[in-house]
Amino acid sequence: MSNGNRQVLLAARPVGAPKPSDFRIEETPRPEPSAGEMLLRTLWLSLDPYMRGRMNDQASYADPVPLGGVMEGGTVSVVEASNHADYAVGDVVVGRAGWQEWAVSDGTGMRKVDPSGPLSASLGVLGMPGMTAYTGLLNIGQPKAGETVVVAGASGAVGSVVGQIAKIKGCRAVGIAGGPDKCAFTTDELGFDACIDHRAADMSEQLAAACPDGIDVYFENVGGPVLEAVFPLVNMWGRMPVCGMISHYNDTAPPAGPNLLPKAMMLILTRRLTLRGFIVSDYGSQLGDFLRDVGGWLAEGKMRTREDVLEGLDAAPQGLIGLLQGKNFGKLVVKVAEL
Amino acid sequence: MSNGNRQVLLAARPVGAPKPSDFRIEETPRPEPSAGEMLLRTLWLSLDPYMRGRMNDQASYADPVPLGGVMEGGTVSVVEASNHADYAVGDVVVGRAGWQEWAVSDGTGMRKVDPSGPLSASLGVLGMPGMTAYTGLLNIGQPKAGETVVVAGASGAVGSVVGQIAKIKGCRAVGIAGGPDKCAFTTDELGFDACIDHRAADMSEQLAAACPDGIDVYFENVGGPVLEAVFPLVNMWGRMPVCGMISHYNDTAPPAGPNLLPKAMMLILTRRLTLRGFIVSDYGSQLGDFLRDVGGWLAEGKMRTREDVLEGLDAAPQGLIGLLQGKNFGKLVVKVAEL
Repeated sequence: MSNGNRQVLLAARPVGAPKPSDFRIEETPRPEPSAGEMLLRTLWLSLDPYMRGRMNDQASYADPVPLGGVMEGGTVSVVEASNHADYAVGDVVVGRAGWQEWAVSDGTGMRKVDPSGPLSASLGVLGMPGMTAYTGLLNIGQPKAGETVVVAGASGAVGSVVGQIAKIKGCRAVGIAGGPDKCAFTTDELGFDACIDHRAADMSEQLAAACPDGIDVYFENVGGPVLEAVFPLVNMWGRMPVCGMISHYNDTAPPAGPNLLPKAMMLILTRRLTLRGFIVSDYGSQLGDFLRDVGGWLAEGKMRTREDVLEGLDAAPQGLIGLLQGKNFGKLVVKVAEL
Repeated sequence: MSNGNRQVLLAARPVGAPKPSDFRIEETPRPEPSAGEMLLRTLWLSLDPYMRGRMNDQASYADPVPLGGVMEGGTVSVVEASNHADYAVGDVVVGRAGWQEWAVSDGTGMRKVDPSGPLSASLGVLGMPGMTAYTGLLNIGQPKAGETVVVAGASGAVGSVVGQIAKIKGCRAVGIAGGPDKCAFTTDELGFDACIDHRAADMSEQLAAACPDGIDVYFENVGGPVLEAVFPLVNMWGRMPVCGMISHYNDTAPPAGPNLLPKAMMLILTRRLTLRGFIVSDYGSQLGDFLRDVGGWLAEGKMRTREDVLEGLDAAPQGLIGLLQGKNFGKLVVKVAEL
């Protein structure tokens, strides 16, 4: 182990899709914890779609990453030195240490996890993406037994949890995913009732056929043609938790017409739809409920998860570039170091 | 008084804007009330934007008016004969007797009103439009003191009530209306803090200037360029009761691009907006609250109203055509007969 700290920095603000030259890898001196701080060694780094927004020069949810700054991201880390009363060497914490091998923290936003568990789960099904699915679906989607729930990115970190919770709640779960392998995974392994390949030319017709009673809840994380196919199928009193718009994160201008906003608003009006945007931190007080419920469902075998693991911090930039193209299959994580 | 019943029928389904030939006026025999029915003579007919949707061959909220059928509409009528235990000759009722001089009713959807009051108010500020404003603003908009509420059609039946309730709740009320006279009316007579002429070339800039703290509640009844100007100004946690889309009712196809739906969805997402469609009947149980509150505010002089009165049933078709072009100034009603 050298005394250095490998970091991935934001080298340039992407125009459209990020490219490798928008990132820069540097080695800086390992930081020293001050009074009240601890030194963290990164074990796992999470790669998630929201990171694309942080690379822009405007606040979306949060301030952008500054040019030359360390890319932000969720991490699982082990405490290697501690001047913090609540943390001891060997503790494992989940938090936001960013795309780097080492970090110091005063504990803000950190939470201890069981070091014996599958640690990367704290970045996926038992972490931010899982809690995004849980809180958005239950608070805004409010699925009732017998209803139909549709979610895109169905094999991914959020979509896979949305669909499985929908099944647990007695709903019909219809996924949308990229390609036959991902679709087969959601139906054969996760228990979705149906899954549509969004690349199919007749995607809209397939979706309509898979939702014979219409759509009651559409968990929105993709936008684009999927949203356009969903809108006419949404039932009276339908709900749309709006969680993400991954198909538009690389847009540099509004897409060509026709302008579909008026048609969407007319459907919101006449079908009394509810659309509501959210991010997981809006429901931070539900962390305990989330860990109890999803942890329980995992333990009972009612919920499964799949990870797509990249090896080494240097793989992170290409990993995020691929994530925005749908190249991952399962929750994308980077294994930065062994415990 | 002849024994005939003048009626306005739907002669053709409009393509785009309705034209006079889409209506047909006929005189049929006056109907006879059967057992349990009463004979109603129409005094006032309400003209409202939703009627455009009923002229199409597809259900929006409700079934379409059949070709050759009597145009639907809210009415104030006097009971001229009664075989109904709950109604006596001379009672005045508000309900949906349609565009005709006479009707029979079994009482469904009818409600007695004070015959000494200003009867047409039961079609406006104390009727469907007023209750639409009251229920949509309070249930979905949830205005809080100090917030900014924006509404288009600000001098009209719904918008004028939205803005005045916003003021009563301690909000900044910003209207949008067509032309300087309507704008002056909302600020000088109704107490709006500002009003923007939607015909102004710099409408977006004027709206931004009139909303220095952004927009917390946008009561949506118009769509089009107003909605596009509002969206970027809506604050975090903003609410949009979606009540109407009058600028699109005559659309025959989606407007030209660019496609603004993705941008709108991104704002819903990042600003955690809530959009919810509704119609007044969704809140039918709040009729008592509505009549008590709005009736009280009127009596206390906290709320004012303006009517645009057409004389005679034959004026109704051109009245609706003009309403969809914003030609009315105030709640549009047709005086069909004297009490």
